[in-house]
Amino acid sequence: MAYSQGRAVVPPVGELLFEDPPADVHIKYGYVRGDGYYVIKVASGFYQNPQLGLPSSNGLMLLFSRHTGVLEAVLLDEGHLTDVRTAAAGAVAARYLAPREPGCIGIIGSGIQAALQLANLARVTSCRKVLVWGRNPDRVAAWREQFANGEFDVAAAADIDTLVDRCRLIVTTTPATAPLLEAVHAGTHITAVGADAPHKQELAPSVLAAADIVAVDSLSQSDSRGEVYRAVDAGELGRGAAVELGRIVSGELPGRTRREQITVADLTGVATQDIEIARAVYEETVHAH
Amino acid sequence: MAYSQGRAVVPPVGELLFEDPPADVHIKYGYVRGDGYYVIKVASGFYQNPQLGLPSSNGLMLLFSRHTGVLEAVLLDEGHLTDVRTAAAGAVAARYLAPREPGCIGIIGSGIQAALQLANLARVTSCRKVLVWGRNPDRVAAWREQFANGEFDVAAAADIDTLVDRCRLIVTTTPATAPLLEAVHAGTHITAVGADAPHKQELAPSVLAAADIVAVDSLSQSDSRGEVYRAVDAGELGRGAAVELGRIVSGELPGRTRREQITVADLTGVATQDIEIARAVYEETVHAH
Repeated sequence: MAYSQGRAVVPPVGELLFEDPPADVHIKYGYVRGDGYYVIKVASGFYQNPQLGLPSSNGLMLLFSRHTGVLEAVLLDEGHLTDVRTAAAGAVAARYLAPREPGCIGIIGSGIQAALQLANLARVTSCRKVLVWGRNPDRVAAWREQFANGEFDVAAAADIDTLVDRCRLIVTTTPATAPLLEAVHAGTHITAVGADAPHKQELAPSVLAAADIVAVDSLSQSDSRGEVYRAVDAGELGRGAAVELGRIVSGELPGRTRREQITVADLTGVATQDIEIARAVYEETVHAH
Repeated sequence: MAYSQGRAVVPPVGELLFEDPPADVHIKYGYVRGDGYYVIKVASGFYQNPQLGLPSSNGLMLLFSRHTGVLEAVLLDEGHLTDVRTAAAGAVAARYLAPREPGCIGIIGSGIQAALQLANLARVTSCRKVLVWGRNPDRVAAWREQFANGEFDVAAAADIDTLVDRCRLIVTTTPATAPLLEAVHAGTHITAVGADAPHKQELAPSVLAAADIVAVDSLSQSDSRGEVYRAVDAGELGRGAAVELGRIVSGELPGRTRREQITVADLTGVATQDIEIARAVYEETVHAH
């Protein structure tokens, strides 16, 4: 809401690129007018780290007083808070766009983000049946293990078509660079969070063309990354057809109004989310004790 | 040298501006190819802080492994390392450009940077006679106190003309927005470090016009801040007349070759200095123990 209402000051993302070993670092920063803090997030991807037994993602958040510039906290989260805020945004999208009774939740991808998305959905839907699909069956089996004794009933889907047939709430969380979903049934909501860089894509333009509502977190960012610009470039989605999720959350625009609508939330992540999760963690934990 | 030889990767500076209270935050970052680290520096100015008993400047440096992205150190220097690296650069400029026997060192300004510049000059000149000038005589008197029992013989200059008459090595360290120096004698070197923002100026264009060598730390930065672009805009200095100090340090271009030359070093500060001082502090102290 703050972002869509222009209350967030979010300068262009800083970027540092490395060769040998290949890596990239992104610096996202800003503040929400009226807040007591400004936040700088550093997020890195060092893609040969797994060969060293280290995760490829890393990072931290710095929280400063907006009144004095004094450093209040270093949140050495190594990327965890980015994962959490991304999953939280998925739940917000589902709250406003997913059908009340999706029958089954479909999770595409079997990584950390797939698990966090599912965990957060527990707060916005009563559905507890889950189908998961991933490229690597062993990884899918391991992924299902973490939900073995929980509230969700998680089964592996033989293929994406089966998942699409049974699920009316689908979350895509993969690093795919070619579409995984070509079509969905009436009444389906899809949240796509995997395509955070220009070369990534999870949804065919036809999926967005069939949607009654296409919501994004940032319209300006959707011009160059995520699913929307692909569909626009393909001539399947009109320029200006997408709306910002923040305007739906604020009530300015409607969310899902009819059971048979197809809705898409294409989330690429904005610094406002980093600002807010850093503030929340600081105020709820560090500052409170 | 690394910067002038294109070995430093230094993206555009990130900037965050605030109103009420007025403040600005700058994020400088980058790495030197072949180094083991990348560095992010946050430097802030919160201009109403003195009313709260806090310094207006603040900041920190983050040092990460360039190989894995792992955070190696948070240097919570609150701006001190920026002060130190700026003063060290002044000494480097004096080493290559100041006359061997300047007779007297002239310091214009009476703040922290003025003191650090003088302290660093002890390493590159044998001159120990100093004249200082500042707008506020009480502040100048207090400033002189810190050198009372040291190796320098520091006297207050009645006016800038007196200082210019007696000193052949002059350092300007003020936040002036109009020229303080209009002319200097043959054989004088001036290092100007105060004008780090576009609206600041310490040297009249005539001073640069009279110089045999005008050196800057960054040619690209000198197009929009510091003294050079003022002199170019005034038609007193040819475009392309300034050279980078790094090319003098590397021996590619000559420094001072004759006693009567007038030389100017106009330093606005580059991220390479932040990278190197963070690395030096980390390797010499944190990492060594």
